Amino acid sequence: MVRSVMDIARSISALDLKASAAAQAHLDSLTKPPGSLGKLEWLAIKLAGITGQVTPAFPNRAVVVMAADHGVCAEGISAFPAEVTPQMVANFLAGGAAVNVLARQAGAEVMCVDIGVNADLEHPDLIANKVRYGTGNIAIGPAMSREEAEAAILVGAEIVEQAVARGIGCFVTGEMGIGNTTASAALMSAFTGVPPQDTVGRGTGISEERWLHKVRVVERALECNHPDSADPVGTLAKLGGLEIAGLTGVILGAAANRCPVVIDGFISSAAALAAQRIAPESAGYMIASHVSQEQGHAQLLNILGLEPMLQLDMRLGEGTGGVLALHLLDAACRIMSEMATFESAGISSANEEAQEGTSAAGESGL
Amino acid sequence: MVRSVMDIARSISALDLKASAAAQAHLDSLTKPPGSLGKLEWLAIKLAGITGQVTPAFPNRAVVVMAADHGVCAEGISAFPAEVTPQMVANFLAGGAAVNVLARQAGAEVMCVDIGVNADLEHPDLIANKVRYGTGNIAIGPAMSREEAEAAILVGAEIVEQAVARGIGCFVTGEMGIGNTTASAALMSAFTGVPPQDTVGRGTGISEERWLHKVRVVERALECNHPDSADPVGTLAKLGGLEIAGLTGVILGAAANRCPVVIDGFISSAAALAAQRIAPESAGYMIASHVSQEQGHAQLLNILGLEPMLQLDMRLGEGTGGVLALHLLDAACRIMSEMATFESAGISSANEEAQEGTSAAGESGL
Repeated sequence: MVRSVMDIARSISALDLKASAAAQAHLDSLTKPPGSLGKLEWLAIKLAGITGQVTPAFPNRAVVVMAADHGVCAEGISAFPAEVTPQMVANFLAGGAAVNVLARQAGAEVMCVDIGVNADLEHPDLIANKVRYGTGNIAIGPAMSREEAEAAILVGAEIVEQAVARGIGCFVTGEMGIGNTTASAALMSAFTGVPPQDTVGRGTGISEERWLHKVRVVERALECNHPDSADPVGTLAKLGGLEIAGLTGVILGAAANRCPVVIDGFISSAAALAAQRIAPESAGYMIASHVSQEQGHAQLLNILGLEPMLQLDMRLGEGTGGVLALHLLDAACRIMSEMATFESAGISSANEEAQEGTSAAGESGL
Repeated sequence: MVRSVMDIARSISALDLKASAAAQAHLDSLTKPPGSLGKLEWLAIKLAGITGQVTPAFPNRAVVVMAADHGVCAEGISAFPAEVTPQMVANFLAGGAAVNVLARQAGAEVMCVDIGVNADLEHPDLIANKVRYGTGNIAIGPAMSREEAEAAILVGAEIVEQAVARGIGCFVTGEMGIGNTTASAALMSAFTGVPPQDTVGRGTGISEERWLHKVRVVERALECNHPDSADPVGTLAKLGGLEIAGLTGVILGAAANRCPVVIDGFISSAAALAAQRIAPESAGYMIASHVSQEQGHAQLLNILGLEPMLQLDMRLGEGTGGVLALHLLDAACRIMSEMATFESAGISSANEEAQEGTSAAGESGL
């Protein structure tokens, strides 16, 4: 049973550098030029550090899709009506949304959580943890109280605790909430000082007028709420969303349980930023999946020190990019457990230049 | 039975634009903002055009790994000795190489072809189609004769024909050949006019001295062979490799059979460039997988009009990036066949702005 946000933060330990070093040594013994599998090698090293195992595997994994509504929709910042949030929750529960399809492909369970939808929802598979019926309008006041933000974080951490107890070893962040790119842009600006014109997304062709309006809404949110970036929970309460705070809890909970957590897109990355500000060690447990079309996303990943692996121009959220990246996690794990070594395969090694990781042979040039 | 290179080229037809349009219409009916799945949507549209089916699937697929040696190794352009080529072929046949591991994960068969290894190889699973024992040294003369280049292309096309006959519906290009980045750089320079200093790879840290030497070798190859870019088979014969010509045949054969062919890294892309010059319609059947660390690769994909989906800093070849991309092909297929529509899920549609594909909701902002 999770007690407090600070308890979770304190329980997150550093990565196992000894396991990472052992993974690096194993990678260098495999039949390929050193480093030639690029980010897959980096991923294998990170997964060893996270789990303490040189050849980990993650047969049981889940994407936690947190859903909530946003009071800021009253400002007309979204092209879809707020009623779509509960409709999409029903779609997740019926298995028909993009994240369901891609999670089935990746062998991941979809855990759909009502953490703040502005409607009464009932379904046997729904994880019902509503903290409140949507947030307040951040353009005119706080999204929620500090207590509500803490409660939402604890919902996420508790869901991870229970999932780990039944064998889930890897998590993906997912979300649904009309208006949540606005809240995420406000959080990014508050935490990093990057101005709203660089954190508010244009989508693929939003009109200049509509984009300027959204920027102005985020500016108003920052002006009226006076967020203190040194107080991450307070900042989440003032500008965030219930699903964003919930995902912050998922990330902290995964880190506390030494599980990798795959970060989806811009909104998930805003939650990751909050988690990193609450517990800097948590960043070691995060794995970036893709870089989305939301304009602030690439910069946000950079600030988090995370490098995306997929470049798909996606802008859907839900956890869709995150579950696609599970195939790459599996690839890194299989490379560690299944590849032959130079010794076992009886293959001549390179000259010193390549041994130092500076192969002149380039691609395919073992 | 494949007759001649020109016969294959002539048998390649244009993409089925009616099927692509139907795929686009179906995508726009699914529960997501229009276009929000980015390149997965583009891929679904392309796969419909290739196969003529709106909801295709590719349960049976193969990576064709062509292996051959390069006379240019005599110039000391590779960090690994040429004896590694047959050793790696043995590794492929034993299932221990990276491409074997990643192909198993993706459910793809590895077809290992000796098309020009400079050694006698025997193994029950080896596809033995040696055209000659390695190429000549392109720094001082042609890689092979025109007849040999044609024979190598036909080997690739014939392998595809036979595979299609037993139900394989999707191909990935793979290769192994110490020295083949040098041949690929020479081909790219000859076909595109991009100078060798921009097509010769630096790997991740090749010394300036060694890189300059490799550039000079490619310059000498271009000077002494006088390739005519309007004669693609002749250019392949003068500067290419047997495995590169073989892959050109695989690509042409796949296109002739209306099968998608996933292009791996720089060497595979050089083969794709030759295929496109032989039969421009073949480019419609190519799917780029990743952009590698070889410096010419991004530009080469751009010239081919292909956009990579994975950004993994890989530089291994073998088909490794290509088989990883099969998961993304499967994702595109599943999106088409499994996702709910707005109508079936009873979800409110967006306002006109989002309907036009300019969703202000951004990511997750259905």
